Amino acid sequence: MEPEEFRAAAHALVDWIADYRERIPELPVQSQVKPGDVAGLLPVSAPAAPESFDAVLRDLDHVVVPGITQVQHPNYYGWFPSNATLSSVLGDFATAGLGALGITWQSAPSLTEVEEVVVAWLRELTGVPETWYGVIQDTASTACLVALLAARERATDYSETRGGLQAEPAPMTVYTTEYAHSSIPKAVALAGFGMDNLRVVETDPWTRALRPAALAEAIAADVAEGRRPVAVVVNIGTTGTTAVDPLAEIVPIAREHGMWVHVDAAMAGSALLLPEQRGLVDGLEGADSLTWNPHKWMGTVLDCSLMYVADPEHLVRVMATDPSYLRSTVDGSVTQFKDWGIPLGRRFRALKLWFQLRLDGVEAIRDRLRRDLANARWLADQVEAAPRWRVLAPVSLQTVVLRHEPPDVVSPDGEVLDGAALDAHTLSWVDAINDSGRAFITPAKLDGRWSVRVSIGAEPTTAADVAALWDLLRSTAERG
Amino acid sequence: MEPEEFRAAAHALVDWIADYRERIPELPVQSQVKPGDVAGLLPVSAPAAPESFDAVLRDLDHVVVPGITQVQHPNYYGWFPSNATLSSVLGDFATAGLGALGITWQSAPSLTEVEEVVVAWLRELTGVPETWYGVIQDTASTACLVALLAARERATDYSETRGGLQAEPAPMTVYTTEYAHSSIPKAVALAGFGMDNLRVVETDPWTRALRPAALAEAIAADVAEGRRPVAVVVNIGTTGTTAVDPLAEIVPIAREHGMWVHVDAAMAGSALLLPEQRGLVDGLEGADSLTWNPHKWMGTVLDCSLMYVADPEHLVRVMATDPSYLRSTVDGSVTQFKDWGIPLGRRFRALKLWFQLRLDGVEAIRDRLRRDLANARWLADQVEAAPRWRVLAPVSLQTVVLRHEPPDVVSPDGEVLDGAALDAHTLSWVDAINDSGRAFITPAKLDGRWSVRVSIGAEPTTAADVAALWDLLRSTAERG
Repeated sequence: MEPEEFRAAAHALVDWIADYRERIPELPVQSQVKPGDVAGLLPVSAPAAPESFDAVLRDLDHVVVPGITQVQHPNYYGWFPSNATLSSVLGDFATAGLGALGITWQSAPSLTEVEEVVVAWLRELTGVPETWYGVIQDTASTACLVALLAARERATDYSETRGGLQAEPAPMTVYTTEYAHSSIPKAVALAGFGMDNLRVVETDPWTRALRPAALAEAIAADVAEGRRPVAVVVNIGTTGTTAVDPLAEIVPIAREHGMWVHVDAAMAGSALLLPEQRGLVDGLEGADSLTWNPHKWMGTVLDCSLMYVADPEHLVRVMATDPSYLRSTVDGSVTQFKDWGIPLGRRFRALKLWFQLRLDGVEAIRDRLRRDLANARWLADQVEAAPRWRVLAPVSLQTVVLRHEPPDVVSPDGEVLDGAALDAHTLSWVDAINDSGRAFITPAKLDGRWSVRVSIGAEPTTAADVAALWDLLRSTAERG
Repeated sequence: MEPEEFRAAAHALVDWIADYRERIPELPVQSQVKPGDVAGLLPVSAPAAPESFDAVLRDLDHVVVPGITQVQHPNYYGWFPSNATLSSVLGDFATAGLGALGITWQSAPSLTEVEEVVVAWLRELTGVPETWYGVIQDTASTACLVALLAARERATDYSETRGGLQAEPAPMTVYTTEYAHSSIPKAVALAGFGMDNLRVVETDPWTRALRPAALAEAIAADVAEGRRPVAVVVNIGTTGTTAVDPLAEIVPIAREHGMWVHVDAAMAGSALLLPEQRGLVDGLEGADSLTWNPHKWMGTVLDCSLMYVADPEHLVRVMATDPSYLRSTVDGSVTQFKDWGIPLGRRFRALKLWFQLRLDGVEAIRDRLRRDLANARWLADQVEAAPRWRVLAPVSLQTVVLRHEPPDVVSPDGEVLDGAALDAHTLSWVDAINDSGRAFITPAKLDGRWSVRVSIGAEPTTAADVAALWDLLRSTAERG
């Protein structure tokens, strides 16, 4: 496509996107399509001849939008916030328009150096130790896998250059809690530790936070049986209830055994932009790596996961490649981010962070985060005050985990009389709300029973929206 | 940022991108900045208050563009083509503007189903077996890692759910050639096989293609010593010389031992769009997985790597996660791409493929690929006919590997008299061209000596550009 043709089409697309963003509040939050509906609207083969951009734009309306659960909607309270702030969309668009190739420093020096600067900005804004180094990964899943691979290799004197894990006589063990994100056990498995060597450490029954004494005991038991504790994944803001493991108490235990401490703050990291929330990661200076996702609550468009490490040498030793065709005359004096993760070719992801921070400014982002925290606190207060409603976990951030408990299935003092009926009731009213398209909330198992996660923090969600949600929750659940 | 503010800024950005694309031919191809130049132009902290979009746009010109090696330039002949076709940029922009969240089918049904349809279009267009299933990964590096993880787990009856590789008594071995992409040995290492268990199979000295008899011998030797051959990575279009391993001869050897056959056609896959090039992957129907990158030669903006597998069950068994909060009422009747790779959260990458195929049409893409193949053939003919110039490998695609051999360092019959002087000469004239900003080519080691890769296929590169390049090569090297 020639630049002039692009110019016309892109102007039309800009207006389409701006119009679309304006009308999101009128759209159903949960996509109403059925499996196969979208695919059924598309031809089975690619077009041989060019189509008009008008035809493509029409299909955005008719094919694509109906098939999207509107996570940018003010009444989206599902999973976690997945904001795509328009300032970051501009940066992402610039990235695509520039078409830069991130493989070495030489292939796009500004890609590397803007990334270094912007991750340093966010390091400062979030209170990550000044001595740490940062890089952007695509997701926290990848970042955790990278961290565990580094932990494995550091612990085996870089065995992958020899016999690999297969040559290891004493099994290495990894520790986290049952509330860790699903990507944590997945990374344990992919990295070759084996699920037998993943220790699910006991948590506090109310806070769902790791119990340091239980961690120490689990480590001691493994050591006594000849195993080698090598890593602990500390969850700051779990997916289920935003539980916060006590990092400051975990670090000295892990340090005693030379273990790698990876801090998974994928969701909660945005809160570190607020100085009053820094207590979430007390003890961080003794850890090895931290990941958090600007593409969640902070609002950077997918995908953008920040990874900070105390010592990048461990990443480089595990991830570096050095083919001759990537030689350049400046090697050794520049950062080569290709050696800090799995992919060789990288997008210029730093631009969207750079654009967002400059166009929105940090204070406006902070104001929005504080608004969401206040809205969550308000909702929790309403739930706690309402008969037959219960808040099921501490509200440490912007997610409220709640349940409505009808009198026939839960006794006045909170004893569950009929668990199956309670689960059916919960799923029924949640599905009714989601299917209505009026709001989107997420059911999740907690202690073996279905609960409801109301995760506040979509960019446009106001206090009035949350008040309306509370009315909707009550009218739907209490009617059921 | 509000939609109306976005509208104004995005229109300005559209014009900036169109203007930028138009003036790329006037820019130096290789970035002229020195290490630290870009970072030195940026403030050390993020702005607290919003900046104007004008200020950001100005910095695209003053900070970002000078720090980019212009891979969209007509005189870019480096690494491999890394085209960012403007039709795909539109799709990528739509992806960002929509801000959809790809975690489950339910979170964005059209994200999943457009991806299924578009990867099926490309399956048909490239002759991949109809019974295979496709998914988009970020890069071929990730795809190869995913394939090797699947191979490892299939071969160990899914050991990661138990003791992991550490419980394996007999080392598993993986086979490829010395010309495999750097991500292949990296994946072998990351997946825990260990570099001791990577077999570098002998190649033909001229074609650099794997010798099937040598593969069979290496496998037999490992089996005889109690090791377990589990995977072979077949290179279709190596990075060095676009060498093509004989897939049809490799498959029966691998099949005999139940090995996983992964086909890495990251660069060459685009050529499969041409029916006359399908011979490149003869034998594919007996393989297990294939990866190729539309983000290279075909021109889809980074990042977009297609991965096809004969049986997705192996991916799902290795990659699936099933937390309760991702439950939905349609589970089981839809594709969940989160279970086909490492990340949970995924961008709507299919849109850029969809836009590009519709807006450009397949025939125009094919015409461009054929143009590049003809340009490479033409250049190779000139090099072969010129005294003191040599083509160093078969020109199987669009990359010509060549060398200028001055009389004092190479004898008339091709014997290298002074290798160090030949290397110094080669690097000297390549650096002179790259530093001039007039064209960009890539030096690479071949058989221990520096050679020059001229990789033709930037979207705007015409026959006239290649003719001018040949003049530039001659005048620079012969002057040296």
